Amino acid sequence: MNSGKSSMSFKAVILAGGSGERFWPLSTPERPKQFLRVFGGESLIRQALARLDGLVASEDAFVVTTKSLVAATRKELPEVPKGNIVGEPMRRDTGAAVALGVGLAAGGADPVVGFFSSDQMVAKPKEFRKVVSKAVTIARRKQVIVTLGIKPTYPATCFGYISPKTRTFVEKPDAKTAKQYVKAGYLWNAGMFIARASTFRGAFAAHAPELSCLTSSTNHLAALYSKLPKISFDYAVMEKAKNVEVVPGDFGWDDVGSFAAFDKYFPHDVRGNVREGPCTVVEAEGNICVARSARISLLGVKNLVVVTTPDAVLVADKSRLTEIKRLFAK
Amino acid sequence: MNSGKSSMSFKAVILAGGSGERFWPLSTPERPKQFLRVFGGESLIRQALARLDGLVASEDAFVVTTKSLVAATRKELPEVPKGNIVGEPMRRDTGAAVALGVGLAAGGADPVVGFFSSDQMVAKPKEFRKVVSKAVTIARRKQVIVTLGIKPTYPATCFGYISPKTRTFVEKPDAKTAKQYVKAGYLWNAGMFIARASTFRGAFAAHAPELSCLTSSTNHLAALYSKLPKISFDYAVMEKAKNVEVVPGDFGWDDVGSFAAFDKYFPHDVRGNVREGPCTVVEAEGNICVARSARISLLGVKNLVVVTTPDAVLVADKSRLTEIKRLFAK
Repeated sequence: MNSGKSSMSFKAVILAGGSGERFWPLSTPERPKQFLRVFGGESLIRQALARLDGLVASEDAFVVTTKSLVAATRKELPEVPKGNIVGEPMRRDTGAAVALGVGLAAGGADPVVGFFSSDQMVAKPKEFRKVVSKAVTIARRKQVIVTLGIKPTYPATCFGYISPKTRTFVEKPDAKTAKQYVKAGYLWNAGMFIARASTFRGAFAAHAPELSCLTSSTNHLAALYSKLPKISFDYAVMEKAKNVEVVPGDFGWDDVGSFAAFDKYFPHDVRGNVREGPCTVVEAEGNICVARSARISLLGVKNLVVVTTPDAVLVADKSRLTEIKRLFAK
Repeated sequence: MNSGKSSMSFKAVILAGGSGERFWPLSTPERPKQFLRVFGGESLIRQALARLDGLVASEDAFVVTTKSLVAATRKELPEVPKGNIVGEPMRRDTGAAVALGVGLAAGGADPVVGFFSSDQMVAKPKEFRKVVSKAVTIARRKQVIVTLGIKPTYPATCFGYISPKTRTFVEKPDAKTAKQYVKAGYLWNAGMFIARASTFRGAFAAHAPELSCLTSSTNHLAALYSKLPKISFDYAVMEKAKNVEVVPGDFGWDDVGSFAAFDKYFPHDVRGNVREGPCTVVEAEGNICVARSARISLLGVKNLVVVTTPDAVLVADKSRLTEIKRLFAK
C-alpha cells in the first residue's frame, strides 16, 4: 500500500465487530466473519484493507474492533500500525464505533475520515476506489456526510435503503416495499460514510451528544463505554442529519450475509454443489459442502449446507440458514 | 457361559465376514458390521455369542472370519479359545465358510454343528434358544439339515424365503412376490443351519464336492482357498439338498441391514430423531444422528443419516442408503 497524493489527509476506519454466528462453525465468536477465509482466498478483513490500496497508506488505516479480537486483528493486518487497531471494551453498536473511529483517526487535525465494513465483498475494487475518491473529494469541499448508495441488483429485504432524492434512510423493508424502493430508484445502504472529522463531530454534537466525547478522546474507554447507549450510527446520526449527500456506486457490493452467498461467489460442479476440501458427492444436488476436518460424503441429499471443522459439524437446510442463531440458544 | 447337559456334543460356528460398507463410516473394512456397537450396547458379534449362552460352552464356540479380522475378533471374544477363531485367506462366500466351519468344529467326531451370523439382532434370546434347542434335537436324531425359518413381520424384499411345505429356498423377491410368499406362509431364510457334521459332509460331497476337502481338513487353507469357487451355501447346498427340515421361529430376528434399522431399535426424540453422542437439533425431523467426533448440529433437515467419526463424515438421505456402496467407487 503506497502513500500518494490521493491519500493526502484521508483516513480510513474499518469497523470490525461481529459475533461470528452466521457462518458458524467456520466463524466463531473468537474468529468472526471478517476472518472468514474461503476457497483459498484472503480473509474478508484483508480484502477490506486491500481494496483501499492507493486511497490510504497503511499508517492512515484504522480498525475499531472488539477488545478480545485486537490481537487476532493485528496478526491478520501486520502492515497496520498496532496503535491503529483499537478494541472496544464492550459492544455498543455502530454509533459508538463510528464516534471512536473519528477520535482515533483524526487526532488533533481535521482529515476526511471514511468508514468501511470489514466483512463485505466488492467484486470490482477499481470501481469502488473511483466512487470512494469522488466521495472524499465532496467531503473535503463541503460540510456533508457522504454515504455510498449501492445500486440494487434485486429487491433485497436484508438491507436498509437510501432515497437519493430526499436523502432519507429507511430500514430493511418487506418484500413488497423493497420492490417499490427499487422501482423508485432507492439505493442500498452499505454502511459506508465519508466526512471531515469536524463534520462528524458536529453531527454527533447535534444528534447524539452522549457519544460526542469519543470523537475527541480515546482514553479511558472502559469507563466511558459502560455509560454509552447501544445505538446504530444510522439511527443516532444519519436519520437525523440534514447535511447528507449520497454518491451512488455499482461495484459488485455484497455483505456476504450467510452461507447462501457461497452460491454466488464460488464455482459449482455440474450438479450445483459448491465444495471446499475433500467432499465426495453421489446423486447430491445444490449443496454447499465445506470440509475442514474429515472427508465429507454426501449421498442423495439436496440443498444442504454441510460444514465440518475439528470442533463442530453443521448440517442445515439452505432455506433455514437465517435460523442458525437458534443453535446457540441450545 | 456354562457348560451343561444341553450343550453336549453341540458346537456353534459364528460366520463373521463382512465388508463394512453398509454402516460406513461407523463400520469400515477393518471394523465391519459385527463390531458395530451403538447406543452403549455390546457389539453385534458379542451379542451373537451371548445369545448362545447355555447352548454351547465357550470352548465349543467357533468363529470363521477373514484373515485380517482374526486379531480383532479374538480381542472382542476373549472367552473363546484362540484356536477356535480362524481366518479365511480370502473371501469365498458362505459355501466355503460353512465347509471350513464343519471341519473346524467337528474335529474327528460327529457333533451337531450349528451356523449363526455375527451381525444380526435377536430381540427375544430366550425364545431363540428354545428354537435352536429344538433344531439341535432334530439334527441329532435324523440325517437332516435343519434351517431356522423366521416368521415374516412384513413382506420384505431384502431376505430370501423358505417354503416350509416344500422345503425349497427362494431368492429375494420383488414386492409383489414377497406379498404372495407371506400370504402362502413362507418364512424368511435367516441363514442359520444345524446338522450333524456327517450330514453336512454328506451334503457337500453330493452337491458341492469342490468344497468337500474343507469339511475334514483345515490345514493349508491358503493353497486350498485360491482354487475354491465363490458360491453361497444356499446355492451350493441348500437349494439342492432333499434332506432339509425347517423349524419356524419367532424371536425378533433382524439382520440390521442399514442405518435405517436404527429407527427400529433405538429411542426417538419427540420429532423422531434417533441420536447418539452430542447432537443439537433445531426443527429437524426423522434423522439418525451419530456423533463420534465433534458435536453435530442439525438445522431444519429431514430424514437424513448423519454420522461423523474422526475419519469421515456421512450425510445421506435415508431413502438412498442402499446406494451407500457407490461412495466407495469414488
